[in-house]
Amino acid sequence: MTEVTHGLEGVIAAETRLSRVDGEVGELILAGYPLEELAPNARFEETLHLFWHGELPSSNQLSRLQSELAECRTLRAATQYLILASTDAKTSMMDILRMATDSLSLKTDSSTTPRDAALRVTAAMPTIIANAWRRSRDEEPISPDDDLGHAANFLYMLDGQVPSDERVRALETYLNTVVDHGFNASTFTARVIASTQSDLISAVVGAIGALKGPLHGGAPGPALDMVFEIGRPENTEAYLREKLARGERLMGFGHRVYKVRDPRAEVLAHAAAQLAASGENRALYDLALKVESVALQLLEELKPGRRLKTNVEFYTALLLHCLGLPTELFTPTFALARVVGWCAHAFEQLEEGRLIRPRSRYVGPTDRVWASPSREQESVA
Amino acid sequence: MTEVTHGLEGVIAAETRLSRVDGEVGELILAGYPLEELAPNARFEETLHLFWHGELPSSNQLSRLQSELAECRTLRAATQYLILASTDAKTSMMDILRMATDSLSLKTDSSTTPRDAALRVTAAMPTIIANAWRRSRDEEPISPDDDLGHAANFLYMLDGQVPSDERVRALETYLNTVVDHGFNASTFTARVIASTQSDLISAVVGAIGALKGPLHGGAPGPALDMVFEIGRPENTEAYLREKLARGERLMGFGHRVYKVRDPRAEVLAHAAAQLAASGENRALYDLALKVESVALQLLEELKPGRRLKTNVEFYTALLLHCLGLPTELFTPTFALARVVGWCAHAFEQLEEGRLIRPRSRYVGPTDRVWASPSREQESVA
Repeated sequence: MTEVTHGLEGVIAAETRLSRVDGEVGELILAGYPLEELAPNARFEETLHLFWHGELPSSNQLSRLQSELAECRTLRAATQYLILASTDAKTSMMDILRMATDSLSLKTDSSTTPRDAALRVTAAMPTIIANAWRRSRDEEPISPDDDLGHAANFLYMLDGQVPSDERVRALETYLNTVVDHGFNASTFTARVIASTQSDLISAVVGAIGALKGPLHGGAPGPALDMVFEIGRPENTEAYLREKLARGERLMGFGHRVYKVRDPRAEVLAHAAAQLAASGENRALYDLALKVESVALQLLEELKPGRRLKTNVEFYTALLLHCLGLPTELFTPTFALARVVGWCAHAFEQLEEGRLIRPRSRYVGPTDRVWASPSREQESVA
Repeated sequence: MTEVTHGLEGVIAAETRLSRVDGEVGELILAGYPLEELAPNARFEETLHLFWHGELPSSNQLSRLQSELAECRTLRAATQYLILASTDAKTSMMDILRMATDSLSLKTDSSTTPRDAALRVTAAMPTIIANAWRRSRDEEPISPDDDLGHAANFLYMLDGQVPSDERVRALETYLNTVVDHGFNASTFTARVIASTQSDLISAVVGAIGALKGPLHGGAPGPALDMVFEIGRPENTEAYLREKLARGERLMGFGHRVYKVRDPRAEVLAHAAAQLAASGENRALYDLALKVESVALQLLEELKPGRRLKTNVEFYTALLLHCLGLPTELFTPTFALARVVGWCAHAFEQLEEGRLIRPRSRYVGPTDRVWASPSREQESVA
């Protein structure tokens, strides 16, 4: 009798050309490129083209792609109304992102190709997030600027300032870094939905729903909260020792897959260093470095053999904070990047053409006989 | 090296107490009851209680449940506006159902329990479908009637007529019959999303997205179209022989799991017979019986050993048609039933507390080196 494989752990569900995660050596391959090659160099539109078409775009392809995305940034009235109603109701940012993204189906019909739908979702998600954020603070939304690239336009729609090249580069490095990561639960959700030959928006909406869950990961806020609580370098060791003595986890350290330093932490630390080098965040960056080094030392000392290393959340939080993003937007911004991976996986799955349908083992009774208790009681009454 | 298990075929992903499908003997167990015991007897609210709480409700529990559902039937303004905008844009019924169900998150916050959310979704889906159907025909929606049960109220909101007991019984038998069916792709989607400890609405919305896909099944329209095309009993054999000679599939026959007559077909055929016995649909029912018997005979003769038997779609289409439902509402009505199963599976998965996260095998290159073609061409230009 076949065993139950709880959580599908260790089961290989499909082949992919999109990413490879090697947790033992700390290596991440993104569509053929080692993370360190791609993330700090590519514009996010280049990464999108690489993931959706297997190759970086030519100059012409890149400018066509940029125009296509710019055309799909504006939201329909129904989506705007939904965002307004949601922010009035104090709905969470991830729920708003999922609901409003779902409403993009208003723009699709049976002639919409998977790539059309993927473009619309990818282009519109930054507008949804920026609008929702501004509405939640009783500010009017800012219309997208067609002359700005995908990452720059997102920053612009948040505060109305055209961002510096350094800020755009930092955000693009982040988006590239987290664009894809094997079969995490949201990506797998997108593939299961696409495996029925359903549409791209259905796949993406399902994935956003999975990303929301606390077991998914991708909630980098708490790692930064710890750095803020420590406040000054000289408090670091005492704070961390107390925390560990109370049996608490150090947010930002340890990963189910990586047993060495998460390669994404390396790339994001470097990007944060560049962004913080001359600015107001220099002291925070130095403090974060100190917290990381003491934390690693204490984890090695107090939990030997556990191999708890810096994960992606620690430097994600630092980088996004240095970019001026509020904590509430950390997970939505992660979704902005990951949607490109979700769509690429949906394309792969649509092409594979095979339904994903595991089995279950029934462990309940099998011989109950009908005798409705509710009706029996009625007839007695 | 572990093999890739394409489509997760044969992998047992979890244990469940909700349903057991035995395709070799043609048996379906629903929460302990053989299908034939439960489906023709239970009110749909009783089935809901059975699936969510493991037992049929007492009389008091049943009436409390009916009140709770009745309270959650009305849609918020934002959901109504979304339905109106969608029908104006001629969006498909399944997209409208998914979008409008998603917007129910407007009514939830961090204090909403999984059961609260499940009740709201289950109660509101009939209203969404009936409103959308009426809007698509430029008719004003009909408000729900608190004195009617779940199934009766759905029929009432479609045409404003309080349905007869026979029609309500037929619809409840249908809803009970398709409430759950192992780990089909939509149910599995709901479980993957819930496995991140995300919320119930996210799980249900993902499941609706999966149900939309043509590989999922649950699109019974074409099976009935064939019966209509045949038109008269004496045309049956010639029509079916020609269709098979052209190499076409007979819709309504054959199933990935069942190698004997789908037990659901049996129950639905019986329900259709009762509903059609005295009414205007008697001739159609007799024709369908004839089509089934000739089809089975020809399939045995022309495709020996393939074991293509009547599946659930054939009699679903007949029954829903006899209930007066239009073809466009067949799959949405299927979702009305299955949402109770999806929620029950989400509860099981939330309780299990384990992330569903399989692995993938990377088959792409690993050593690409950064040299942006778009920028190279730019510097040449």
